[in-house]
Amino acid sequence: MKPDYLAERQGNPVTWSRNSCLPPLKHRLALVGFGTVAQGLCQILYSRRADLLKEHAFDFDIVAVTSPSRGSMYDPEGLSLSKLVELGTSRAPFTDHLQTWDSEAVIRNSNATIVIELTPTDLKTAEPALTYCQAAFESGKHIITGNKGPAALNYQNTKSLAEQSGLAFLNEATVLSGTPVISLFQQSLAGIRIHGIRGILNGTTNFILSEMESGARYEQALETAENRGYLEADKTADIEGFDAQAKLVILANILMDIPLRLQDVQRSGISSITSAKIQAAKQADKRWKLVASLTMDGDQVLASVQPEQLPLSDPLSHIMDTGNALTFSTDLLGDVTISGPGAGSIETGYSILSDLLTINRGNSV
Amino acid sequence: MKPDYLAERQGNPVTWSRNSCLPPLKHRLALVGFGTVAQGLCQILYSRRADLLKEHAFDFDIVAVTSPSRGSMYDPEGLSLSKLVELGTSRAPFTDHLQTWDSEAVIRNSNATIVIELTPTDLKTAEPALTYCQAAFESGKHIITGNKGPAALNYQNTKSLAEQSGLAFLNEATVLSGTPVISLFQQSLAGIRIHGIRGILNGTTNFILSEMESGARYEQALETAENRGYLEADKTADIEGFDAQAKLVILANILMDIPLRLQDVQRSGISSITSAKIQAAKQADKRWKLVASLTMDGDQVLASVQPEQLPLSDPLSHIMDTGNALTFSTDLLGDVTISGPGAGSIETGYSILSDLLTINRGNSV
Repeated sequence: MKPDYLAERQGNPVTWSRNSCLPPLKHRLALVGFGTVAQGLCQILYSRRADLLKEHAFDFDIVAVTSPSRGSMYDPEGLSLSKLVELGTSRAPFTDHLQTWDSEAVIRNSNATIVIELTPTDLKTAEPALTYCQAAFESGKHIITGNKGPAALNYQNTKSLAEQSGLAFLNEATVLSGTPVISLFQQSLAGIRIHGIRGILNGTTNFILSEMESGARYEQALETAENRGYLEADKTADIEGFDAQAKLVILANILMDIPLRLQDVQRSGISSITSAKIQAAKQADKRWKLVASLTMDGDQVLASVQPEQLPLSDPLSHIMDTGNALTFSTDLLGDVTISGPGAGSIETGYSILSDLLTINRGNSV
Repeated sequence: MKPDYLAERQGNPVTWSRNSCLPPLKHRLALVGFGTVAQGLCQILYSRRADLLKEHAFDFDIVAVTSPSRGSMYDPEGLSLSKLVELGTSRAPFTDHLQTWDSEAVIRNSNATIVIELTPTDLKTAEPALTYCQAAFESGKHIITGNKGPAALNYQNTKSLAEQSGLAFLNEATVLSGTPVISLFQQSLAGIRIHGIRGILNGTTNFILSEMESGARYEQALETAENRGYLEADKTADIEGFDAQAKLVILANILMDIPLRLQDVQRSGISSITSAKIQAAKQADKRWKLVASLTMDGDQVLASVQPEQLPLSDPLSHIMDTGNALTFSTDLLGDVTISGPGAGSIETGYSILSDLLTINRGNSV
């Protein structure tokens, strides 16, 4: 005998297309941090509002924005999106709807349903992001974050806090910007097991190596990267491989359910790669790339971030400038590779939208 | 004033994690066609049943299987999955649960909730697949198909029939086997606009060109491909580019909302590519590939399938053997490329599972 609820649910064909069954849920967003990613997101949301409602039944208001230098704005009925886009470009101080709440108070006290956490990554403590995640879950709010701290240092706990409250903890922005990786495996590739990962996870170092291959010296290439805003506040995060190391840990945590720690990943950066080495590789039809890789040897995890000379027959050798790429070794499909942008205001802003649409699909069906 | 239903829904934080809110829905599957893809799917479902239930709340029975040569089996309580796996390997005749219904009668009269349509592609009429899709929608059943006919010849109508009934019409298996393309854009990349497509869409011709580059003559390479089961029943479907042409039309229909017809795609195959041409390209650091591409010139669509000599700096030049790859030019992310298997029993079987999990997520949240 099958339980009654199954019989009943099976007896009624369930409506599949969610657009036809329920009115759109209106999400209320709080942006914690108002840097380039938040501004890219605002631009996308502003230009696509009507399409997102029509094509994805996605309706929203941004009710709060906090910035360490400009203070906090809050309007429970929704801030003006066009003004937010202007404020992003102009860098003028916040003047409307000012609130004395700090970021944590905004998270706890506002009527937001989703907190978009975009504070700078701290790979020592993961703060203040961890405190913000906890505040969000305690007050019944989903978290979407572009901060690598929580997923690199404390993924299992944070995810478990979210699950206990039936809330989302989404991290698509932390790796490969808008190029889908986490959602790819959680949605299109659901059920697939990953045995290994190999890829180029840091756009800044890849840009520097590309510039050097075009003839620039290391210092010149570094300066160009800096002028274009590609470098993190702490340069060593990119150059010495800490950023790629954190991203590899995030992928292991989220996609492979391996509780990897930063110190489990052998790491060396690109500061030892001289112009002479670049030219020697070029002569031998090879290219230096900062390669992140994770393989399994039985139960043992071998993980590293290090510069490698790749032959031109290796697809990763053709990922140039700020591009990123990842090859996943899988059980049912063999190798699957995805490549695309690894940074950028609009590109990373889009990854936040991708997570918003994931929540929207989950909530409103 | 906001409508009441919004106020009410916003007042209650909605449970996001679907595992926590509802018991799994039990899907009843009918396999129409019992070739390599259906058998690959059965093997995956058999070996993963417990994991799929636990990790994806996906529960199912296969209630019907039809085969043109072996007849139809039907048990409304579910056929034995281990016996189906055996029957796939042994090729023995069906003996249990025999039914006199033909495939259309199975679709109309069985208690299946999802029809998995795996009859051979007919690019002239799309039959019998179109009739089967209609029968499924009329009797309240979702369609997942690996047949290129319906989406290449009659996508808009078929999709609209499905939507009118609140049912799914899913086609992931029709392009790049289990490498996600359609679901990638409908889920992880929702909201992204595609301006252009360029890729290697046919694994068989790519295998033949790879073999020729390793020194085989065209006829030898063709024979190897045939011996490995890579060729469609009608060889010209692969060799002359009809298969890639249909796949490009499917991508335009589904992902770009362009009602392209087969005759809108300029097509030439690989039978003109001689060993001499292959060797000449090799001397010039190039490789012949059968490239499918679609670009927009204002409102005009330029679509073609043709052999091209690609420089080794082109990432597509490194896709070898039966591999497939697609680069999408997008509005928010620039170029995004995905590569992976383009054929195979397990690989294509997995793409059916991916569509099943899409329905499962849509139905049971």
